[in-house]
Amino acid sequence: MYDYMIKVAINGYGTIGKRVADAVAAQKDMKVIGVSKTRPNMEGFVAQQRGYPLYIADISKKASFEKVGLKVAGSVEDMCQAADVIVDATPGDIGATNKPLYEKLKKKAIWQGGEEHEVAGFSFNSSCNYKDAIGRQFVRVVSCNTTGLCRIINEVDKEFGVTHVHAIMVRRGADPGVIKKGPIDATVLDPVTVPSHHGPDVLTVLPHVSITTMAMIVPTTMMHMHAIQITTKKPVTKEGVIALINRHPRLGLIKKSAGIKSTAEIKEFAMDLGRQRSDLFENCIFEDSIYANKNELCFFQAIHQEADVVVENIDAIRAMTGIEKDGATSVQMTNKALGLVTIQNNH
Amino acid sequence: MYDYMIKVAINGYGTIGKRVADAVAAQKDMKVIGVSKTRPNMEGFVAQQRGYPLYIADISKKASFEKVGLKVAGSVEDMCQAADVIVDATPGDIGATNKPLYEKLKKKAIWQGGEEHEVAGFSFNSSCNYKDAIGRQFVRVVSCNTTGLCRIINEVDKEFGVTHVHAIMVRRGADPGVIKKGPIDATVLDPVTVPSHHGPDVLTVLPHVSITTMAMIVPTTMMHMHAIQITTKKPVTKEGVIALINRHPRLGLIKKSAGIKSTAEIKEFAMDLGRQRSDLFENCIFEDSIYANKNELCFFQAIHQEADVVVENIDAIRAMTGIEKDGATSVQMTNKALGLVTIQNNH
Amino acid sequence: MYDYMIKVAINGYGTIGKRVADAVAAQKDMKVIGVSKTRPNMEGFVAQQRGYPLYIADISKKASFEKVGLKVAGSVEDMCQAADVIVDATPGDIGATNKPLYEKLKKKAIWQGGEEHEVAGFSFNSSCNYKDAIGRQFVRVVSCNTTGLCRIINEVDKEFGVTHVHAIMVRRGADPGVIKKGPIDATVLDPVTVPSHHGPDVLTVLPHVSITTMAMIVPTTMMHMHAIQITTKKPVTKEGVIALINRHPRLGLIKKSAGIKSTAEIKEFAMDLGRQRSDLFENCIFEDSIYANKNELCFFQAIHQEADVVVENIDAIRAMTGIEKDGATSVQMTNKALGLVTIQNNH
Amino acid sequence: MYDYMIKVAINGYGTIGKRVADAVAAQKDMKVIGVSKTRPNMEGFVAQQRGYPLYIADISKKASFEKVGLKVAGSVEDMCQAADVIVDATPGDIGATNKPLYEKLKKKAIWQGGEEHEVAGFSFNSSCNYKDAIGRQFVRVVSCNTTGLCRIINEVDKEFGVTHVHAIMVRRGADPGVIKKGPIDATVLDPVTVPSHHGPDVLTVLPHVSITTMAMIVPTTMMHMHAIQITTKKPVTKEGVIALINRHPRLGLIKKSAGIKSTAEIKEFAMDLGRQRSDLFENCIFEDSIYANKNELCFFQAIHQEADVVVENIDAIRAMTGIEKDGATSVQMTNKALGLVTIQNNH
Repeated sequence: MYDYMIKVAINGYGTIGKRVADAVAAQKDMKVIGVSKTRPNMEGFVAQQRGYPLYIADISKKASFEKVGLKVAGSVEDMCQAADVIVDATPGDIGATNKPLYEKLKKKAIWQGGEEHEVAGFSFNSSCNYKDAIGRQFVRVVSCNTTGLCRIINEVDKEFGVTHVHAIMVRRGADPGVIKKGPIDATVLDPVTVPSHHGPDVLTVLPHVSITTMAMIVPTTMMHMHAIQITTKKPVTKEGVIALINRHPRLGLIKKSAGIKSTAEIKEFAMDLGRQRSDLFENCIFEDSIYANKNELCFFQAIHQEADVVVENIDAIRAMTGIEKDGATSVQMTNKALGLVTIQNNH
Repeated sequence: MYDYMIKVAINGYGTIGKRVADAVAAQKDMKVIGVSKTRPNMEGFVAQQRGYPLYIADISKKASFEKVGLKVAGSVEDMCQAADVIVDATPGDIGATNKPLYEKLKKKAIWQGGEEHEVAGFSFNSSCNYKDAIGRQFVRVVSCNTTGLCRIINEVDKEFGVTHVHAIMVRRGADPGVIKKGPIDATVLDPVTVPSHHGPDVLTVLPHVSITTMAMIVPTTMMHMHAIQITTKKPVTKEGVIALINRHPRLGLIKKSAGIKSTAEIKEFAMDLGRQRSDLFENCIFEDSIYANKNELCFFQAIHQEADVVVENIDAIRAMTGIEKDGATSVQMTNKALGLVTIQNNH
Repeated sequence: MYDYMIKVAINGYGTIGKRVADAVAAQKDMKVIGVSKTRPNMEGFVAQQRGYPLYIADISKKASFEKVGLKVAGSVEDMCQAADVIVDATPGDIGATNKPLYEKLKKKAIWQGGEEHEVAGFSFNSSCNYKDAIGRQFVRVVSCNTTGLCRIINEVDKEFGVTHVHAIMVRRGADPGVIKKGPIDATVLDPVTVPSHHGPDVLTVLPHVSITTMAMIVPTTMMHMHAIQITTKKPVTKEGVIALINRHPRLGLIKKSAGIKSTAEIKEFAMDLGRQRSDLFENCIFEDSIYANKNELCFFQAIHQEADVVVENIDAIRAMTGIEKDGATSVQMTNKALGLVTIQNNH
Repeated sequence: MYDYMIKVAINGYGTIGKRVADAVAAQKDMKVIGVSKTRPNMEGFVAQQRGYPLYIADISKKASFEKVGLKVAGSVEDMCQAADVIVDATPGDIGATNKPLYEKLKKKAIWQGGEEHEVAGFSFNSSCNYKDAIGRQFVRVVSCNTTGLCRIINEVDKEFGVTHVHAIMVRRGADPGVIKKGPIDATVLDPVTVPSHHGPDVLTVLPHVSITTMAMIVPTTMMHMHAIQITTKKPVTKEGVIALINRHPRLGLIKKSAGIKSTAEIKEFAMDLGRQRSDLFENCIFEDSIYANKNELCFFQAIHQEADVVVENIDAIRAMTGIEKDGATSVQMTNKALGLVTIQNNH
């Protein structure tokens, strides 16, 4: 066991926050000292069931929480004061407004990819730039799609050299538990303009890469799907690509033998394997889609929008606090604590 | 521990079969001696990971299973021969064709609600007619919708007396892992005619009830939703209805304080509570929807099509083998083994 | 031809407004003198193509319209000033805020069902209370669902007597051209509480009816589906119900011979029949679903949320201006001008 | 008027067949002499309403058609015997089985893209190879996606030269009137392997093009969406691309000023413009998505799966019969008869 457990506060206990909380709780070198909610609802009961102290943004609403049986430990500021690191998982654009609080309290803080790079001045991916995050006060974990792109592009670049990337993101319209957002029956260009923000966002982590991205939204809740074409410097082979996927702790391979050809079937498989919340922390690359022809590499990868950044947050905590200086070791610790055996090793 | 573990075979390891297998494995008085598959795919790997011996319908396909790394224990007939009870979870209309095999082998067998009442000659619901199943060779567990209807109608009948039931089933179009079935953008009457088969099917369990049912299919994978109106003999009260729900081990109450108003949010809550596969074995009745006005009772209940019959299968095994003569005790054993605390006790 | 053409302004040129405009333009006794938009987009181009003068709410935005080639005729107040009747088809809750303008200008105005009954003090359905609307300054045309309920309930009441109605509305989540609203994969109770607002809303037109309604939203854009049970005073027959449907100019019968069992197929049929915008102005009652057993009548009806109120607005204009005193005559005129042959007469 | 009207039979009166029939009927140099159905349903009533003689595949089913009021003119063989050209719009893979009949009767026939190239030995696109179709007995009109790809790739190639195309097809799961096909909530790789069949299919029309295609299916009924990247020989400019689109009679431009960013909004616009069945016969290229950077061109185009091949069938009829030798003239005739003003000229 560790002499010191890093005290982590989760500001915003929603889709990402609740997963980060459970992932922190599973690690041996850190613990959850509190989570925050703005309104009393089912997630408050979940936090309580898990034993996470519940803090609220507006302490004047304390009575409305207590009325339904939710115990309030204090204000968000109280929670942040008690933490070593704050994971800000509030909705996009809200996170930046919390920065003055973290600065005032002189606390380390992590933002999610819904915020601009500038909020932290450093964008993180544990496979690409762990070392550069060591000791930083502020870090931004890039979005789920950018995380998925960085992981695979960086590996292909190391192995074959990347001349240009053309990536299309076919995004889920809303998370499974979200009922107000659509579309119901449409393919929506989001944005219409090219490139989408994903290309420039990859550059915040991998500044030397040439990439054009296009993005749309479709009526599914399951996962994002990426259709990727990479022009490589050296000729590329299917075997070489499979080998680099198998070597990487956060790249998963959907083997042909599983007979899976959709996001829904991946999620069903994850559920059947007993993954908590059916979460897929790794890129899900379809073995059968890998097409290597001279210097052209194409493949499909599915990205679980609710999960892949969760493990990155854990590694960011370790890098920022300096409790672990080696990225590969942190990734291994994170994965092991979550029982993460990449999906190809289950079939 | 029990002196004797009932040997259960699961013929058909799909949506229902895989859940029944896990539920059997969790009980102290029974064990899984095998599961069957017709084709090698991801579910085969799941069975293997769980340690369930894999049998196949067509033994000539053995090589195709072994080629992808799936060990084959023998034929379906081998599996059935070794079992005390066979749970037939093959797709609708296939199950009946397996009856001659079970008869030849003189084995007890359970069919699912996709089969006609006549295949077993007895339709089962553990809350309604457990006693009548004791010692039977053949039992049919009624479908998910009929199970959900029987549970609540029987309780309301015992408490207030039921004059007539008008129930509308708004059904999910396909299970979450199924990608070929629709509709994508339509409300489909299934059937167009009134009553739907659900009304007569309730009568196989509760023959004295007067009920008219109407059913449709909508583009969701989550759960079925029932809109129910019951005309009662005695005046009905909201408090009385909540009380009977709280007393029943398979009736769940979605409390108003959870802020849940959709099937998607129920599933998210179940996932967050750590339920395996996010399964809801209980009826999910919305507290805030309960409308009691003189002799009219209305409410909404959501039914998890993949799960509510699973626990009924376990109880049916106990009744048929006679290992437990009391229905309430069996229900309690089943629930406890699965860690089932009805949903209202989590919030 | 008529000596005088009623001058109609459409305030709000969206889903309903654009249909009302075209329906007005098709009548011999009224004309469109203007339509209004708040922002320049594709609907502005459609208005221009149809030759409807375009007025804008905020005249300071004139340049932004003209920049993209949309000619602006003036402000909304200018438009209202020039009109005999204003059809307010602005989004729900906005309409009421326009009342002071209509009062100031002493103009007749019609609101849609998204507004409260109180805004007009009179709720209209041409089959039920045309006479009571004659000469009124303010009228509210009830919502698409309430319109569909009133039409059929009133007829059944006249023929068989209605003791009680139990109606379930399975509503489309968003109109086909709307891309932001969901749900994507959920059945949402809207509201959770029983009765939904539809029951009380029916009473604004048919105050003597006893009715309990329940409503939910599902992921489709096509049409609403009603599952209705009516307890009648006299015994009811299927033939009698079909006869009253066939007699009524706004009740359509989806005959069994069409092989239609979904909303999507109805819309496809309407499209193939050449209906403008595939609109269904009539209730679409499924012949094969009509179930008559003693004093219980059940059936399904599909309601096209974008269309059924359009014809009611036209009739309301005639009633309010007094240009036609007989409701049946107005309905006939409206239908004829739109080429409306009820759907059963096409197959 | 023309001295001779080409006699066209439509074998298969479904999604494509009914549109081809109406398009034929709108031309001055051809007429519909019959359409065929296998079962009596709503489409039979539509054919009858339009005045198309109805033929049936299995003449022994005549009574089942007549029972519901559908007059049967004869057998499919009778119909084909009477025709100059047969448009085979039967479901994929059925069409090929009709070839012996057409050969026996020595009739000209057109198949759709669901059939293999080999069935006709010639694959057609009116913008690319009209001349090569003149006088042929058998022609295959390529699928909707291939048609959309060929139109734009050929133009870009003529103007800038094409080095390589990378095209991702995000396909609708089912047509709007189809209720059995999914998926409901999934993104499905179809196929998982790269390239999809679309790339090779483009080569049947444009054999010299280098292209890699990837395809998936999503839960929408509206349109296909293509995300396309073309590497050009000469540097490409946005203005140049817009100019070539504006010059081409079957390339439509969704102007930025329309504020449209989805397939649903395009369909709504087409409906509002009064297009029959809301059909989009032209590629719908999003102006705001056109990205030109040196030799890289990217853009999104939406393809209406039910419509874009319809006009190609008309042109194919003219080429095969030789009634018109010039492709551009035929295209102009076809478009004019359908009142097709490309979408950019409506806004």
